[in-house]
Amino acid sequence: MTASQPSINDVKAYMEGLGRAARAASVEIARASTAAKNLALTETARVIEAEAAALAAANARDLDAASALDAAARDRLTLTPARIAAMAQGLREMAALPDPVGAITDLARRPSGIQVGRMRVPLGVVGIIYESRPNVTADAAGLCLKSGNAVILRGGSEALHSNQAIAACIARGLAVAGLPAAAVQVVETTDRAAVGALLQSPAYVDVIVPRGGKSLIERVTAEARVPVIKHLDGVCHVYLDADADPAKAEKVAFNAKCQRYGTCNTMETLLVHAAVASSLLPPLFARYRDAGVELRGCAATCALDAAVTPATEDDWYAEYLAPILAVRVVSSLDEAMQHIRQYGSQHTDAIITENYSHAMRFLREVDSSSVMVNASTRFADGFEYGLGAEIGISTDKFHARGPVGLEGLTSQKWIVLGDGEVRG
Amino acid sequence: MTASQPSINDVKAYMEGLGRAARAASVEIARASTAAKNLALTETARVIEAEAAALAAANARDLDAASALDAAARDRLTLTPARIAAMAQGLREMAALPDPVGAITDLARRPSGIQVGRMRVPLGVVGIIYESRPNVTADAAGLCLKSGNAVILRGGSEALHSNQAIAACIARGLAVAGLPAAAVQVVETTDRAAVGALLQSPAYVDVIVPRGGKSLIERVTAEARVPVIKHLDGVCHVYLDADADPAKAEKVAFNAKCQRYGTCNTMETLLVHAAVASSLLPPLFARYRDAGVELRGCAATCALDAAVTPATEDDWYAEYLAPILAVRVVSSLDEAMQHIRQYGSQHTDAIITENYSHAMRFLREVDSSSVMVNASTRFADGFEYGLGAEIGISTDKFHARGPVGLEGLTSQKWIVLGDGEVRG
Repeated sequence: MTASQPSINDVKAYMEGLGRAARAASVEIARASTAAKNLALTETARVIEAEAAALAAANARDLDAASALDAAARDRLTLTPARIAAMAQGLREMAALPDPVGAITDLARRPSGIQVGRMRVPLGVVGIIYESRPNVTADAAGLCLKSGNAVILRGGSEALHSNQAIAACIARGLAVAGLPAAAVQVVETTDRAAVGALLQSPAYVDVIVPRGGKSLIERVTAEARVPVIKHLDGVCHVYLDADADPAKAEKVAFNAKCQRYGTCNTMETLLVHAAVASSLLPPLFARYRDAGVELRGCAATCALDAAVTPATEDDWYAEYLAPILAVRVVSSLDEAMQHIRQYGSQHTDAIITENYSHAMRFLREVDSSSVMVNASTRFADGFEYGLGAEIGISTDKFHARGPVGLEGLTSQKWIVLGDGEVRG
Repeated sequence: MTASQPSINDVKAYMEGLGRAARAASVEIARASTAAKNLALTETARVIEAEAAALAAANARDLDAASALDAAARDRLTLTPARIAAMAQGLREMAALPDPVGAITDLARRPSGIQVGRMRVPLGVVGIIYESRPNVTADAAGLCLKSGNAVILRGGSEALHSNQAIAACIARGLAVAGLPAAAVQVVETTDRAAVGALLQSPAYVDVIVPRGGKSLIERVTAEARVPVIKHLDGVCHVYLDADADPAKAEKVAFNAKCQRYGTCNTMETLLVHAAVASSLLPPLFARYRDAGVELRGCAATCALDAAVTPATEDDWYAEYLAPILAVRVVSSLDEAMQHIRQYGSQHTDAIITENYSHAMRFLREVDSSSVMVNASTRFADGFEYGLGAEIGISTDKFHARGPVGLEGLTSQKWIVLGDGEVRG
């Protein structure tokens, strides 16, 4: 377990070496048995627990060097005993998930006599670019391993020693399972050119998953020459329909905003039908104020409650990630959906209604990665959806939308089972 | 039906106008009923047949202006009566296919009480960039329409009048069905900047499908800032295993090469296990020679048959699209798969064997968009697979692999059906 940063002069050659090794390892990991992959996961979990002190020591080195970070960033960087235990637990849960690789579906006989179906297969080599949380190293490596992919991890420079220490635990897990060490590689240089090399090497990298703030994602999107599974803004809406059940409306609208403020699936704008605004909003506003939520509203909202600040155009686009809520009264379901189309980020949107046709139209016509009826937007999450874990939440439409678990890290190839058939 | 090329001074503004109109139309076409979409398809088919003479006249104008084209290119450009009838028939077959849009799958209740599932949804706006065959206009428009997408079609400049005439038929079909005209738009300028605008407008285009030669695909790949469903080379292999049934081996290996030479799923390299090379190759070589196929082989192949030309390293990479075949003797299944990994293009590869374990290993470990056992590579095709029609064959792993039909033009969003559940 080397904790020093190696001196790497030629970053391009270094990254090409990682890429070549990952490509070779991807062939082995793709055909690895479920038992071997699960053993690597559970053995890594065991080593992480056994090496908790060493992990904490490596993390302390990072924290010592990171005196310039603010308190929130230091918190994200810190590996507490509970977080170390959670990493191990997460790996054990991945081991318990079904293996997606090799699953054959839709096998059907064609008029020619051949049987055609699809087999789920790994994507190949996944590049993860992330910021300070070192636990991403274990989570992302575990998901890639279980889905049969090789992975190259490029974490934040401030977390380098922590990430190397976690990688050393993973390496021991891979070795016990007889899997190639290069299936999981951590980039051991903090040179930013390493990110550029990852983004522009379609020969060695099949997909990039950036995890971090908006500026990271924008850089990755602008520079990438390989596919990206990315998560942009979460400007989530709850629409209280004219036919909303008042109790469900209050419960969901409060939870969607207040259960946690800083998450991407938190409601940022509340839409309310004009017919129920005066009955539903006052009790809700009282609860928001008790919780310390600042309210910014359209003219109709301000007319209902003089203490609400007038919202500006910018408020409708805002992902506050804070105890602030924009509120708008609309005259119809169509106006609500039009607002979501114009200002939303296609992440997660919910309607509260007892009206069947309105529920069906909302489900069908709102073009977001998660669309909900009578449930809190906070449910948009890999664990809540039963994926077991997620590598991220995709706001793209291509390949994977919404929470991306093991399946999002795979593709399907076609298989044909014949008996000597030829084409006529 | 204007057949003259409009003068478009500001290509960027023109393309932005098309993009904006397509984005607006995509909302309507995404929620259109199956009946309306099918009516548009069958009505377009009817109009194409009724206007066959006008289509032929528009096509004649293109052919008159295309005196510089070689015979093969002129043939691709020509709309014969049979090809016009085939366009109409293709649209009727699309109308008969199941509508993928709105299909809900995998709905399951979670411990929280919510029901989580997935709904199939259109991608949004599809950009098609293609070369001379004007029938692509009808085929691609039909597939996009049925899958609920708006489409912007940018055909070859030499086919402009033909494409405009076909677009006019589609416009009449859309009008009869009450669907927006901008759901299908043909770019009416031959300015190459229009292609650049399509490739670099993620705000208006969700995916690009290039259809044409290698230089077109390479340009699209290099310039695109939006996702691309692309088809690169088809360097397809048939591997005759030591446990191959000799009759199936001969039948499939002959068909895979000789049924058609110019298609992407034609076998380009034949691999043979050393144990059966001397028994399987001589009768096959006799049939290839009768068919006029030139043989290029490894040293072991040349030793078996002195008339075979020695193959160079380039031959193993070659997509001949011609009556030429590379032949290599290998010593094991692993060597065969290693050859495919090194020289193949991940398009379509087949093993001929009666050995169960070899078949399973080949299916699992060969990383190609179609992997076959005891069947001709020529089956890798949307119609043969039962997709009804295809927009192309993807050699990428991301999103869609292999023949891409209606499903490849869609994505899945998550839906949550609740009863007032909140997250704890």
